[in-house]
Amino acid sequence: MKNIIIPVLLFLAFTSFAQTKDTDLVKYVNPLIGTHKMGHTYPGATVPFGMVQLSPETDTLLYEHNGKYNGPVYKYCAGYQYDDPTIVGFSHTHFSGTGHSDLGDFLIMPTTGKLQLNSGTEDHPEKGYRSAFSHENEVAEPNYYRVKLDDHNIIAELTTSSRVGFHQYTFPQSEQAHIILDLTSGIYNYADKNVWTFVRVENDTLITGYRQTSGWARTRTVYFAMSFSKPFVQYGSQDNSKPQVYRGFWGKFDQRKNFPEVAGRQLKFYFDFKTSENEKIKIKFALSPVSTEGALQNMLSEIPHWDFEEVKTNGQQLWNKELGKVVVNTLTPGDKVNFYTAMYHAFLGPTLYMDVNGEYRGLDQNNHKANGFTNYTTFSLWDTYRALHPLFNILQPKRNQDMIQSMIAHYDQSVHHMLPVWSHYANENWCMIGYHSVSVIADAIIKGNANFDVNKALDACVATANQKYYGAIDEYIQLGYVPDEKSGSSVSMTLEYAYDDWCIAQAAKKLNRMDVYDTFMKRSQNWKNVFDANTGYTRPRDGKGVFRKEFDVLSTHGQGFIEGNAWNYSLYVPHDAESMIKMMGGTKRFVTHLDSLFTMYLPDKFFAETEDITREGIIGNYVHGNEPAHHVAYLYNWTNEPWKTQERVRMILKKQYQPTPDGLGGNDDCGQMSAWYIFTSLGFYPVAPGSNEYALGSPAIQKATIALENGKTLIIDTKNQSDKNVYVQKVEVNGQPLKRLHLTHEEIMNGGTVTFYMGSRPKK
Amino acid sequence: MKNIIIPVLLFLAFTSFAQTKDTDLVKYVNPLIGTHKMGHTYPGATVPFGMVQLSPETDTLLYEHNGKYNGPVYKYCAGYQYDDPTIVGFSHTHFSGTGHSDLGDFLIMPTTGKLQLNSGTEDHPEKGYRSAFSHENEVAEPNYYRVKLDDHNIIAELTTSSRVGFHQYTFPQSEQAHIILDLTSGIYNYADKNVWTFVRVENDTLITGYRQTSGWARTRTVYFAMSFSKPFVQYGSQDNSKPQVYRGFWGKFDQRKNFPEVAGRQLKFYFDFKTSENEKIKIKFALSPVSTEGALQNMLSEIPHWDFEEVKTNGQQLWNKELGKVVVNTLTPGDKVNFYTAMYHAFLGPTLYMDVNGEYRGLDQNNHKANGFTNYTTFSLWDTYRALHPLFNILQPKRNQDMIQSMIAHYDQSVHHMLPVWSHYANENWCMIGYHSVSVIADAIIKGNANFDVNKALDACVATANQKYYGAIDEYIQLGYVPDEKSGSSVSMTLEYAYDDWCIAQAAKKLNRMDVYDTFMKRSQNWKNVFDANTGYTRPRDGKGVFRKEFDVLSTHGQGFIEGNAWNYSLYVPHDAESMIKMMGGTKRFVTHLDSLFTMYLPDKFFAETEDITREGIIGNYVHGNEPAHHVAYLYNWTNEPWKTQERVRMILKKQYQPTPDGLGGNDDCGQMSAWYIFTSLGFYPVAPGSNEYALGSPAIQKATIALENGKTLIIDTKNQSDKNVYVQKVEVNGQPLKRLHLTHEEIMNGGTVTFYMGSRPKK
Repeated sequence: MKNIIIPVLLFLAFTSFAQTKDTDLVKYVNPLIGTHKMGHTYPGATVPFGMVQLSPETDTLLYEHNGKYNGPVYKYCAGYQYDDPTIVGFSHTHFSGTGHSDLGDFLIMPTTGKLQLNSGTEDHPEKGYRSAFSHENEVAEPNYYRVKLDDHNIIAELTTSSRVGFHQYTFPQSEQAHIILDLTSGIYNYADKNVWTFVRVENDTLITGYRQTSGWARTRTVYFAMSFSKPFVQYGSQDNSKPQVYRGFWGKFDQRKNFPEVAGRQLKFYFDFKTSENEKIKIKFALSPVSTEGALQNMLSEIPHWDFEEVKTNGQQLWNKELGKVVVNTLTPGDKVNFYTAMYHAFLGPTLYMDVNGEYRGLDQNNHKANGFTNYTTFSLWDTYRALHPLFNILQPKRNQDMIQSMIAHYDQSVHHMLPVWSHYANENWCMIGYHSVSVIADAIIKGNANFDVNKALDACVATANQKYYGAIDEYIQLGYVPDEKSGSSVSMTLEYAYDDWCIAQAAKKLNRMDVYDTFMKRSQNWKNVFDANTGYTRPRDGKGVFRKEFDVLSTHGQGFIEGNAWNYSLYVPHDAESMIKMMGGTKRFVTHLDSLFTMYLPDKFFAETEDITREGIIGNYVHGNEPAHHVAYLYNWTNEPWKTQERVRMILKKQYQPTPDGLGGNDDCGQMSAWYIFTSLGFYPVAPGSNEYALGSPAIQKATIALENGKTLIIDTKNQSDKNVYVQKVEVNGQPLKRLHLTHEEIMNGGTVTFYMGSRPKK
Repeated sequence: MKNIIIPVLLFLAFTSFAQTKDTDLVKYVNPLIGTHKMGHTYPGATVPFGMVQLSPETDTLLYEHNGKYNGPVYKYCAGYQYDDPTIVGFSHTHFSGTGHSDLGDFLIMPTTGKLQLNSGTEDHPEKGYRSAFSHENEVAEPNYYRVKLDDHNIIAELTTSSRVGFHQYTFPQSEQAHIILDLTSGIYNYADKNVWTFVRVENDTLITGYRQTSGWARTRTVYFAMSFSKPFVQYGSQDNSKPQVYRGFWGKFDQRKNFPEVAGRQLKFYFDFKTSENEKIKIKFALSPVSTEGALQNMLSEIPHWDFEEVKTNGQQLWNKELGKVVVNTLTPGDKVNFYTAMYHAFLGPTLYMDVNGEYRGLDQNNHKANGFTNYTTFSLWDTYRALHPLFNILQPKRNQDMIQSMIAHYDQSVHHMLPVWSHYANENWCMIGYHSVSVIADAIIKGNANFDVNKALDACVATANQKYYGAIDEYIQLGYVPDEKSGSSVSMTLEYAYDDWCIAQAAKKLNRMDVYDTFMKRSQNWKNVFDANTGYTRPRDGKGVFRKEFDVLSTHGQGFIEGNAWNYSLYVPHDAESMIKMMGGTKRFVTHLDSLFTMYLPDKFFAETEDITREGIIGNYVHGNEPAHHVAYLYNWTNEPWKTQERVRMILKKQYQPTPDGLGGNDDCGQMSAWYIFTSLGFYPVAPGSNEYALGSPAIQKATIALENGKTLIIDTKNQSDKNVYVQKVEVNGQPLKRLHLTHEEIMNGGTVTFYMGSRPKK
């Protein structure tokens, strides 16, 4: 699919992509990037950090939760795969770039002709309500999506406000026009995923209800209010619940037709219209985490009219505001698309999770009011602590504080007395390992972006790091490492716990809580306990202290690691790279190790063990699509060959980010991959969040102007920049030469100009 | 079981049952009355109109909802059957006297010895947690229940406040003491009734959670907070969900032991203790319709201590206050027990349905705040409009207004634009026929007990009576009757709709809404359309106007009626008895018809068609246990033989109400049977609620002193009263002879004395 030429690129070829005063940046974003293969992004409409992600589903498969990897379903983490020929409908909630999934709530599909309530198959779309479509008739922009549904001769257009999806369907003349609301549809659907659904037809233009599911989020309910621009002629529903729902005295009614209150587990609704040629039927579809009343208030508050263009424009202005925080000149049009699409993906989440009145459903399943902050959900923290939240400390400082307040609210509501691990929609889903909330909190405290109760936040970090039944914390505290027999990811856990502990220590030091500092600095050294000095690799170790004998440094599965083999994961000591290098045999041997990582060929049998990655998604044995390696290319900075960092990061930027639907080699992971792109393009990267340092790389842009929330402006400028001149010869901060290999957070937030002098040869 | 001598009766034989200044009336109540066979009352603890009904379950069977009558389950509408040998546990919600069921939420069972999480069987209680018990070790009083659990050697005691159940378990010395919380248990349980359950162990004494079910109430959730007086040593849980709940990454944990947050469909919890001899473990178990936070606040607000006796005493004082509204002298001790037990049963419901802060879950599944009224639920209106709500207009006028406000709130929240038919826990369950809310509202308006928005209430009545998809209102409006082909209860529907329409007309007249009055007075004559003058019976009629040919006046099933055959139901024109009598051939023939009703023998094949009735529950073909006949004995007042009313009602009182567990011949039906008893004992009865008249009968008490909420006192006095002197010779109101066969509501509410002069022979 590399040959696909995206219309926006064609367009860009004739526009002034290089000009700096361009404020309409939305046009550089291509939401289709990452929608093919492993990116797991969605192409639909949303506003920055919006609650509604209104996007097409190209297939909705059932997941058999038999413990096996379910590849076909896995493809549909975001609902859409670019090479699919049909669209099933448009639903209102999507994750961006995740490697597991949920959501896809409230699928809407407009159809014409014979009413069909099943979705049909890709091979036989005519047997269901789905429709063939073609990319020629598809437009994807920030907060706008348009497609022609060939089988129904309908133009579908989507836009949103924060909490409301706005559909606009242009129908042909038809006596049989339908709009289907399918509550059985969902992403990562299981046969028994719908716990309960409830729908009321309040009047001939207003529908309310909810969908309660148990999936990745174990106990999740989303409420809605749906308003039509035109009264329907009639309506009906179907309940395919198995076992059938006990109907009791509701059995008196024929609930299938024009009956206004239906509940069950497998509900589908249809609404019939008669349409004239090119008649537009519009739908406002509001969500709420709290109630149908909340959803209705969200709708009335955010979109009290029927002007589709106004909603679209408002949302695109919001995007321009966010994208405009960094104005870049790039070397190529594709780079610019990549950059702004990365910005777009980075600012999709965490997502807003409260009604206009501040109410939201909490982890305790009670309703809460967010007092003094905006509540967010969708915390993919194992991914996003690395670069996304650090990026927010620069570009979204206020939002990052709100996110941390949301995490503390989660902690307050948690019976586990824990900060989130991976949380969405009032649920902890326990995905991945570590307790990386503490990194996000420590990073904000260290960087002074901490307008929240910092001591309480530290207490929450400490409590989280001591929750003995989570992960293998109990054993980790007792032994100083996670024993092999406790977990198949024992080494990864140990390494990440140790880093998290160091974060807690850093925050404690800043808050002068020296007892906490001492305890956690000690714990932060635990990575050494899984380091096998004989081999130079971290390695699983049993409870008695014996390193595992059978051990393959290229293998992941069951080898003590997760999403990364020993070759990669042994490099995961971001908080003490110097000691790590010593442990690995010193600088020279370490450089050899790093070099081999990027240059070796990973045999197929090990490649098969990498998760969510295409062959293009790895470079040698370096797996950019999986997060544990994200800091690795920067580690040359701790050797005497930092030019290799510059070389590698420019290569990774080129190889791993293409302005095409299949341009992402791995899951975007809620913006982490994109945040890496943004930092790296700008020439620096937060190797160890929780410190105030950013390792220098090699900027890929020509010039970037960063408007900071504090009113200052930071300019990243380059001299002699080109695709070949990837080696930094000199760096100046406000004209003064920088004599180290990192920038500090203060240097960034004070604004001014950082100038990179580039050259075609390494500055050794 | 008629030989059972209840301790309270023995006790009463030696006490001054006849004294009038007795204020401890609780001792005359025997909550065991009605717990054997068909009464469907429960023996456990509750306060007047309380939200919590904490009562033992003697069996919990699964209902197969295959459309067939499920007798064994039906017995357990209230969870308890007096002749059962075992107790399964104690749950917190029960209906009183219903003929269909639901509830039984949150079963608690204390055990000793080996932990068992299944309940076992009646035959083999040792194979589960249930226990044998004996009535010798059982005490049932208002707001107090005590029983010894033989198999575990535990004394269980129960009491309540409005929203909190208080358990006190006296254990033997045991290293293996357990308290089981079974969320899979319920009344009228179906295999798939539990929609979702969620439990958090907040700390070592506090548990919270909820149970969401779909049964009679289609979408119902009850929240709880449970507090132990002593920390448990350890705890655990089991989830028997089928299909198994997708566990996702929660599968990392062993959720079966000491894991504090569990969700699924079939959850059971246990809490382990070590106990010393006679150690009491207490539990406060609070409910909420809104949230676990609401439940916790209810607990903290209502019972901020651990004094069981205080809670018991407070509740019994509330009962004495309510019971003391009528102080009676009776002819026998048994009559006194019957009277106060009837008062007790009449004041169990409708039940409180809001948190201490006024919040409750509404019919739209949103949370609402009751502003300016107390919100109630459990409206069994087909039963209770007849005598219970009229009784409330005298004895509970404020509460009756609140109940009507609750019904109007239901209307406001109803997508059907209807007042309740049979509603409980934020659900319309559509049980039975008619729209009798309008009778309750009209009765209150007519009687001037209407401190609510009367015009809005009337609008709600009109909207309800015009909801075309409910029942057969559409056809009824078109044809003037419900056609046979539309419903198997077409005649019952027509008759009841016509009565309800008359109620609306009466209220409209009072409010000077003459357009409404005209419309509904016209509709109120529709009963004539199903009256077959040739036979003198009401009879099913098809849409073309043809009366059904095959028709048996003694049969109920499929004959156009429900809970009553033509012989009974033809008498259902309470609002126009005079016309009815004419239609039936005049007074003489009418009296013959009535006489035959009470004296004929109903052949077995027709008896089998009566619902929920024992053979003792019928008198001839008069079925007192079913409501349609409740006014019938009073109809002699419309003839020249009113003395037959006097004779019959005294006979019914004697035959249908015994102070024994099997003393009720039919379902108490949320107090309607009891309200009939109270009115009839006092000598008058509201034949047509919606009028201000009460038909005179024959008082069965010696004297009654009724303390009205308006500060006045009404005395019902009798002269020459005895079991044989059932015939009224003369009635005086405040010394003035009454020259008619009814009392007016004004006469009652003005207080004073009504004196009945009794004799052994009819006054002809």
